[in-house]
Amino acid sequence: MSMYVVGHKIPDSDSICGAIALAYLKNQIDEPAIATRLGDISPETAFILERFGFDAPAYKESYAGEEVYIVDHSELTQAPDDIADATIVGIVDHHKLGDLTTSTPLECWIRPVGCSNTVIKMMFDFYQVAIPANLAGIMMCAILSDTVIFKSPTCTTADIRCVEALAEIAGIEDFKALGMEMFKVKSAVDGTPVRELVMRDFKDFNMNGNLVGIGQLEVTDLAVFDKIKADLEADIVKLKAEGNRHSVLLLLTDIMQEGSEVLVTSDDASLIEKAYAKTLTDNKVWLDGVLSRKKQVVPPLQDAFA
Amino acid sequence: MSMYVVGHKIPDSDSICGAIALAYLKNQIDEPAIATRLGDISPETAFILERFGFDAPAYKESYAGEEVYIVDHSELTQAPDDIADATIVGIVDHHKLGDLTTSTPLECWIRPVGCSNTVIKMMFDFYQVAIPANLAGIMMCAILSDTVIFKSPTCTTADIRCVEALAEIAGIEDFKALGMEMFKVKSAVDGTPVRELVMRDFKDFNMNGNLVGIGQLEVTDLAVFDKIKADLEADIVKLKAEGNRHSVLLLLTDIMQEGSEVLVTSDDASLIEKAYAKTLTDNKVWLDGVLSRKKQVVPPLQDAFA
Repeated sequence: MSMYVVGHKIPDSDSICGAIALAYLKNQIDEPAIATRLGDISPETAFILERFGFDAPAYKESYAGEEVYIVDHSELTQAPDDIADATIVGIVDHHKLGDLTTSTPLECWIRPVGCSNTVIKMMFDFYQVAIPANLAGIMMCAILSDTVIFKSPTCTTADIRCVEALAEIAGIEDFKALGMEMFKVKSAVDGTPVRELVMRDFKDFNMNGNLVGIGQLEVTDLAVFDKIKADLEADIVKLKAEGNRHSVLLLLTDIMQEGSEVLVTSDDASLIEKAYAKTLTDNKVWLDGVLSRKKQVVPPLQDAFA
Repeated sequence: MSMYVVGHKIPDSDSICGAIALAYLKNQIDEPAIATRLGDISPETAFILERFGFDAPAYKESYAGEEVYIVDHSELTQAPDDIADATIVGIVDHHKLGDLTTSTPLECWIRPVGCSNTVIKMMFDFYQVAIPANLAGIMMCAILSDTVIFKSPTCTTADIRCVEALAEIAGIEDFKALGMEMFKVKSAVDGTPVRELVMRDFKDFNMNGNLVGIGQLEVTDLAVFDKIKADLEADIVKLKAEGNRHSVLLLLTDIMQEGSEVLVTSDDASLIEKAYAKTLTDNKVWLDGVLSRKKQVVPPLQDAFA
């Protein structure tokens, strides 16, 4: 019986590249594994996979009766809908500990670093399994994406050393240039439906019993949003109603300016103002220095809801 | 600021020796740490600490505002009462994933092996920190205890290799003889108050919203219980009422015969009969081959409650 290795819903590059990398590792140590995904591939991830010659993992929605290795989260809201009917055999992650539980012992490789692929690199080292050059390439790109080319406050020395080691294996001399190329692909929003942009990197969180959705778009220049910002604002209001959410936040992150404009719709916007000690203007606020949803946006909001 | 390293309530040898070992490791890698405990030391643990010249960690009940590294569980019911007001910085464990959650990223070293100290040994290897001989001794004893000298179905080859490596560091030639000596200390029940015996290795579980307490006494010969079994049965009935529990089970485990007699008191004993596919006689049942609460007792019961 093969286990399935799968990242979160609305997969980002870390979820997809991590599932591919971990499935490869597991197969090398005689634990049959198949990488899958819970949603569409983003343009950034498509760029990475094409650059290093990988196909996307197969889309698979249901995991009842199967063994599952979870990548890049430990949250019920981000897991397969029928995860309760599956056996979680492991979790590799770099976020806060969420509400997934199991009825049997499992392995958890969770570290407070910038990317799940950094933890997966540690697993390769632990099992002394060599990483093929093209696999090293996609793992490296996932880390460059999650750490915003080392600019994010989530980035640790472990992530930087890991990228350096993977770049050497992959034979990439200027990994920062490749990272910028990747973020330029990510910044292309023209002609993309608004809902697709809102959902591109969107995660739901359970905050003290309230469903809070937080999306993020990372670009090299916020000006790309000038013509569509009103449409984005209207769409998160719709999205909030459709999902019975308490709040929806959309982070428009400028990786060069190093900050995020946050679009907000909420049943109680004062919680958001309290979380970041800022006043909203027209349901928007600029958060200087804020690049990381995980480290700078979620924890204060969770505390405000507590 | 030092972190506190603490095992579960009603600490067993794994919780105590693991807290001491992990606090030592953390201090070696410049992360100041203090081992503490949430309850009294068992006679077995006292034997181990004395054999290798350690004092018991300090008793500490409240952790509000502190950083805490959790050892040997991930369950709210087994954690400090005010853990919600602390920051969990890490978890080392070998059980199912419980209901502890965090609002910030952490490290989790969780493996499906027989003992937390086996995982802590992996951490020493990862950080390339040498283990002093006396520390190796208490870590080895914790593994021999949790794996019932390798007889438990929870025991893995990783545990066996780990004990062998630690025995060499500790300079112990016949570790199985030391293990039997330890289990003889554990088997001495004469003169111990009944409630103390019931609580010696007792854990509460949240099973689908129901509080279920499961105690275990491991001995080399069940005959030690002949004179006190009726008192044990009466006491778990009292304990159930005092804690508003749905059920209390007490496993009387014979490590030589390799099986457990289970004393049961429950609001719905049919759930216990369903879990183990056995009929209770006078609120008791013999489960042949059952040595492990974690692997053989909890999962079927959790499924029966689901």
